[in-house]
Amino acid sequence: MERITSTKNQAVQLMKALFTRKSRNEHGLFPVEGAVMIREALSNGLVPHLVLAEDKFEELAGQLEAAGARAHLASPNVLSAACDTVTPQGIVCAFTLPEELPEENLPEKLVILDGVQDPGNCGTIWRTADAAGIGGIVFGLKSADPLSAKVQRAAMGSGFRVGYRSCDLTELLPALRVKGYSIISSALDGEDFYARTPVGEKFALIIGSEAHGVSQTTKDASTHILKLPMRGGAESLNAAVAAGIMMYELMR
Amino acid sequence: MERITSTKNQAVQLMKALFTRKSRNEHGLFPVEGAVMIREALSNGLVPHLVLAEDKFEELAGQLEAAGARAHLASPNVLSAACDTVTPQGIVCAFTLPEELPEENLPEKLVILDGVQDPGNCGTIWRTADAAGIGGIVFGLKSADPLSAKVQRAAMGSGFRVGYRSCDLTELLPALRVKGYSIISSALDGEDFYARTPVGEKFALIIGSEAHGVSQTTKDASTHILKLPMRGGAESLNAAVAAGIMMYELMR
Repeated sequence: MERITSTKNQAVQLMKALFTRKSRNEHGLFPVEGAVMIREALSNGLVPHLVLAEDKFEELAGQLEAAGARAHLASPNVLSAACDTVTPQGIVCAFTLPEELPEENLPEKLVILDGVQDPGNCGTIWRTADAAGIGGIVFGLKSADPLSAKVQRAAMGSGFRVGYRSCDLTELLPALRVKGYSIISSALDGEDFYARTPVGEKFALIIGSEAHGVSQTTKDASTHILKLPMRGGAESLNAAVAAGIMMYELMR
Repeated sequence: MERITSTKNQAVQLMKALFTRKSRNEHGLFPVEGAVMIREALSNGLVPHLVLAEDKFEELAGQLEAAGARAHLASPNVLSAACDTVTPQGIVCAFTLPEELPEENLPEKLVILDGVQDPGNCGTIWRTADAAGIGGIVFGLKSADPLSAKVQRAAMGSGFRVGYRSCDLTELLPALRVKGYSIISSALDGEDFYARTPVGEKFALIIGSEAHGVSQTTKDASTHILKLPMRGGAESLNAAVAAGIMMYELMR
């Protein structure tokens, strides 16, 4: 295993670049930090391409090498230069971008992000979807990038288990409706979530942006516009909390 | 209204100090940043003591002065020196610490934080408790400080509407049990939340720490140990999301 000593090394520069969306799409790779997340990615069939590891992670780096990655040992300061976290995890691996869910064959239970921009919210919703048993997650165009390190960190491995798709919702939602999905928008002017008409076996739960909620186009394409009861003085819920309450209730 | 030009001014130094727990307790004051949050605090009966405002917030500063506060105008850089946010909100006001909920007369529906340390999680749970209609929130000794700026920011005003108490849970929980409360611990080794035996009108839902869950002492004092179903591969939920799902379900 080659040892990298310079932060100017090409592999270090490539890894660092992958923390931007543009470079991820150019190279077809995305970075995963830390042994736990890397093992999750491997065990979910993702293909490793390039790994930088401190000596203490040499064994895991060797496994990644055996799975086809170029592996390098590096000092903590070189790792720091390659990563975007304040506290680097000692190992970072670039994986090939996963295949997105096929538009023609989406799961029956979906959660859809309509402009949810906070990466922590997006990742937390992904993690909760996994726990609730939701089959897939769709990122609308104005949402955070599903493969950003912050989203994946908040998803805590669920980003490798629950399939996703990035697409334009103005095309997707009418197509889903034709296929018999209930399209459920959560909005502050909606009807009581707990008094909803049944949503059936196929549904897409749509979570709107933190600042503006679901877009008008999305509302127009919806079969249900629902709101969780607000009993006290709070005007709204955190997007990830609202998503969690509704996903768990819909999956009961 | 006096104008402050030096960041070394005593009022600026006092305000800055209030961003630490020790100083808040010493002075009996806590800082609230931004016009929206300050108006929420005022309208919920909190007593303003000291305000620093940029010129554009002179009217609000005047209202606070009329309500008994010492008010000062200051430049943005002086405001910056007095606050802990990266983007200061143009006005900051120190309010008298609110009275805590009396231990002898707690609300019938409670959420209790047993070592929840992330201020964002604590504040989000507070906000969700408000929306769900929970009557009060209790901060166990190892939880974040309820009056920290980060907790209050995440609570988005619910921190002024839903009463709180900070106390030692090892004393509180047995006392609540004697009074007929169900003590509900959420734990990964619990029984199915949705198949629970009824919890009755008086209950305390306990949320454990992000890293270790509820403590053994808390479990021993519980009448119910419950777990939300984990259907996919996720091992756990974010603490604020889990709290939200359970609070809304218990308040249906």
